[in-house]
Amino acid sequence: MESSEKLSPTQFLQQQLQDIVTLLEKQHLEKSLVERGPVIKHDLVETVLNKQQQTRLQEKFALLHPADIAYILESLPLDQRKIAWDAIKNDDDGHVLLEVSDAVRQTLISSMEAEEIVSVAGKLNTDEIADLAADLPKRAMLKILRSLNKKERTHLNAILAYQENQVGSRMDFGMITIRDDLTLKSVAAYIRKLGKLPRHTDKLFVVDQYDVVKGILPLQRLLTHLPIQHVADVMVTDFVRFQAAQDIAEASRAFERYDLISAPVIDAQGRLQGRLCVDSIVDFIRDKTDEDMLSTVGVAEEEDLFSSVWKSAKNRWGWLLINIATAFVSTRIIGLFEDVILQLVALASLMPIIAATGGNTGNQTSILIIRSLALGQITPGNKRRLIKKELTLAALNGTLIGLLVGFLVWLLYQDIALAAVMAMAMFINLIVAVTVGLAIPLLRYKFGKDPAIGTSVMLTSITDSMGFFIFLGLASLFLIHRH
Amino acid sequence: MESSEKLSPTQFLQQQLQDIVTLLEKQHLEKSLVERGPVIKHDLVETVLNKQQQTRLQEKFALLHPADIAYILESLPLDQRKIAWDAIKNDDDGHVLLEVSDAVRQTLISSMEAEEIVSVAGKLNTDEIADLAADLPKRAMLKILRSLNKKERTHLNAILAYQENQVGSRMDFGMITIRDDLTLKSVAAYIRKLGKLPRHTDKLFVVDQYDVVKGILPLQRLLTHLPIQHVADVMVTDFVRFQAAQDIAEASRAFERYDLISAPVIDAQGRLQGRLCVDSIVDFIRDKTDEDMLSTVGVAEEEDLFSSVWKSAKNRWGWLLINIATAFVSTRIIGLFEDVILQLVALASLMPIIAATGGNTGNQTSILIIRSLALGQITPGNKRRLIKKELTLAALNGTLIGLLVGFLVWLLYQDIALAAVMAMAMFINLIVAVTVGLAIPLLRYKFGKDPAIGTSVMLTSITDSMGFFIFLGLASLFLIHRH
Repeated sequence: MESSEKLSPTQFLQQQLQDIVTLLEKQHLEKSLVERGPVIKHDLVETVLNKQQQTRLQEKFALLHPADIAYILESLPLDQRKIAWDAIKNDDDGHVLLEVSDAVRQTLISSMEAEEIVSVAGKLNTDEIADLAADLPKRAMLKILRSLNKKERTHLNAILAYQENQVGSRMDFGMITIRDDLTLKSVAAYIRKLGKLPRHTDKLFVVDQYDVVKGILPLQRLLTHLPIQHVADVMVTDFVRFQAAQDIAEASRAFERYDLISAPVIDAQGRLQGRLCVDSIVDFIRDKTDEDMLSTVGVAEEEDLFSSVWKSAKNRWGWLLINIATAFVSTRIIGLFEDVILQLVALASLMPIIAATGGNTGNQTSILIIRSLALGQITPGNKRRLIKKELTLAALNGTLIGLLVGFLVWLLYQDIALAAVMAMAMFINLIVAVTVGLAIPLLRYKFGKDPAIGTSVMLTSITDSMGFFIFLGLASLFLIHRH
Repeated sequence: MESSEKLSPTQFLQQQLQDIVTLLEKQHLEKSLVERGPVIKHDLVETVLNKQQQTRLQEKFALLHPADIAYILESLPLDQRKIAWDAIKNDDDGHVLLEVSDAVRQTLISSMEAEEIVSVAGKLNTDEIADLAADLPKRAMLKILRSLNKKERTHLNAILAYQENQVGSRMDFGMITIRDDLTLKSVAAYIRKLGKLPRHTDKLFVVDQYDVVKGILPLQRLLTHLPIQHVADVMVTDFVRFQAAQDIAEASRAFERYDLISAPVIDAQGRLQGRLCVDSIVDFIRDKTDEDMLSTVGVAEEEDLFSSVWKSAKNRWGWLLINIATAFVSTRIIGLFEDVILQLVALASLMPIIAATGGNTGNQTSILIIRSLALGQITPGNKRRLIKKELTLAALNGTLIGLLVGFLVWLLYQDIALAAVMAMAMFINLIVAVTVGLAIPLLRYKFGKDPAIGTSVMLTSITDSMGFFIFLGLASLFLIHRH
């Protein structure tokens, strides 16, 4: 990163990306020139050229941090990505795999032999192997398991035993444990002997002979207290620890609340199982908020920007098809009122306003609820008040927007009864929209489902069909006999 | 937190919240009992009771971390929140104010005297005062400025000089600087003399006599290297630093990429200005993703769950009114085709399908783009490919969904021409929807605007009115002459 002195990190990265794309395109160009040349020399020349380019690419990649390589691979289209990935092939391949998004990881792993995967995994910690496990071919995974020693295998199985939403699935084993009868001087000597501390070591964990965590010794205390003091006198006993089976969302809120860097993960008996670090939490927050955003509009999972059109299509179809099915329900509802529309065609023009405003209002409510649930702000104690507030707001909005829309309709059509029906339908549909906007996420959450998934699609369907039904129904009750 | 041994952090907090609500309600109850008693003793008894409850509340709060108090205050409705806040009144008030959301902070500060605010601010670091500055009354802010010493005032002004989206606005001054000619032994002695390190100190910054940052000394290296070694030989010179004027979003991606805990903030000449820590980055990521989610549906800013209905209403009206205005445009478009609808009333039933599917497809695209922009994945180099991919996907979806919807319409109405018009309109509107879903965030981003704001509302408006226009327009071209 020294060379980025004058460039911001992003500018530096985009510069690197540009250089690599240029190299890749040059390679492609030279290759096609060769292909147009005399057939006889074809293979030989191509090989030589490729070798040169490969070397240049490799030199370029060797200088970059795995996370930077990951960024560059993610930004490359599939064909170039494959060539670049073949060019990298070094010890850090495993860390690159860890840094790329799930979708991109699959494209990279699919081009690797089982043997390659096993050798790459050999360079990783067990918690890092666990992160990759879901994306590895079964055959490679079995080989990796066989290559581990007993302790590593226990660690790996410990992580894999937990669900994705549990703290245990995101823990690592980079903790340093000490006993409380040591002096700080001997702790310092022990650390010096280790030579290197795991990443994010801001504290040591103090355990007893049963591995039960009794306290923590922040490095700061180690540095600021006298070497002759004992760990027991210096350690902090009022500290945050997490159960391995606990919800990771809850742990992430505790990390944010108490500004933690690392914390011990324990089992039900208080015995140390592993360590949870802030980088896992940052990843979780990023993943979760992304997922919430994407899943409200019915995008099933993270997409590789350059995955095939077919793959992306499948990722987005589920909810689109549900949307079409429900839209046909709206159609049938409007169909019921076709004679009403024939008598007063203005209804056809006006009904979308009721539906659209309902959809927007409901979406505002549901997104606020999804967000508050994610932040843990909604408790059994305040839920009722919150519902009451949102419904009061809906009544207020319904009245004001109803009157406004009614007035506009009166200006357009000079028909006071039509304006009144419009205002009434708007009022009722906004109440319906907010009720549904509250109900979908709260009920999904109550039954242990993710409150965000498909909320927007479901909500819009309901506010559409209810909007049409309310508006046309009121119209047929109050308007049609006059015509 | 010791008492939470068996409870998860969230359960512990909810328990505390419940206890406090019980106390508050009891106080309210006793107060109303007193109010119904003989008038003469009224004031005296009430005062005594209040004193007792205040004391109990204060005891409860005294045991809690400022972040926990903040959580409890956020979960309390306005009246109870005010009573609880009055009860807290201790040295940590400033930290509680820092932890609550902006919306809740305003409700708390509004109930404080200028003198109180100044004394609370006296307990905070300058970077913390800077965080509060926007919410403080001008009078209080002036008094605070007068109470600071020269160095503090310089620091405060330095932070306030930067925009909210710049690194400088989120930096703090808790950095420890050393010279590179020191031995590790004297560095250790220096730290021991300081007695306490600022939060999140994982590295010391090595500066020259002009305050230019030459390297960093991770505490780990201090602990693992021999005391006789010199800083210059042990320090890391290839490290990540940020320009104070740099975009905070970019810095947050670097923090995620390189798993940083703290990093130096420098000016254009490389001189140390301050320090950026992971907790500020976590806050930024949380704020930004929340804001993105809320702003797509046109909620202007974070809401206090219990802010007044009026305040919430105003927060959500802006885009709702725009939505109604654009919905009237749809109305006028449909109005143009009233005679067409009268001739073939099925059109009125079918047109919402075109609009709704367009809206959903467009939203999927725009959310993916907003997310990719936030992650810095879209570069000038790959933008064109991305656009091409999304449009190909739209064409594929348009063909398949068009055929599906056409088939369903044929089943419903047995009208092959109507089915064909439906399929064609669906195809065209999906292309329009994806084009708009790409264009809104990309153009907003290009012109330096936040790509998320109101995107969903704008997009739905356009796909609605275009959907109606395309469908009814095609119908009037191809279907009406037959009738």
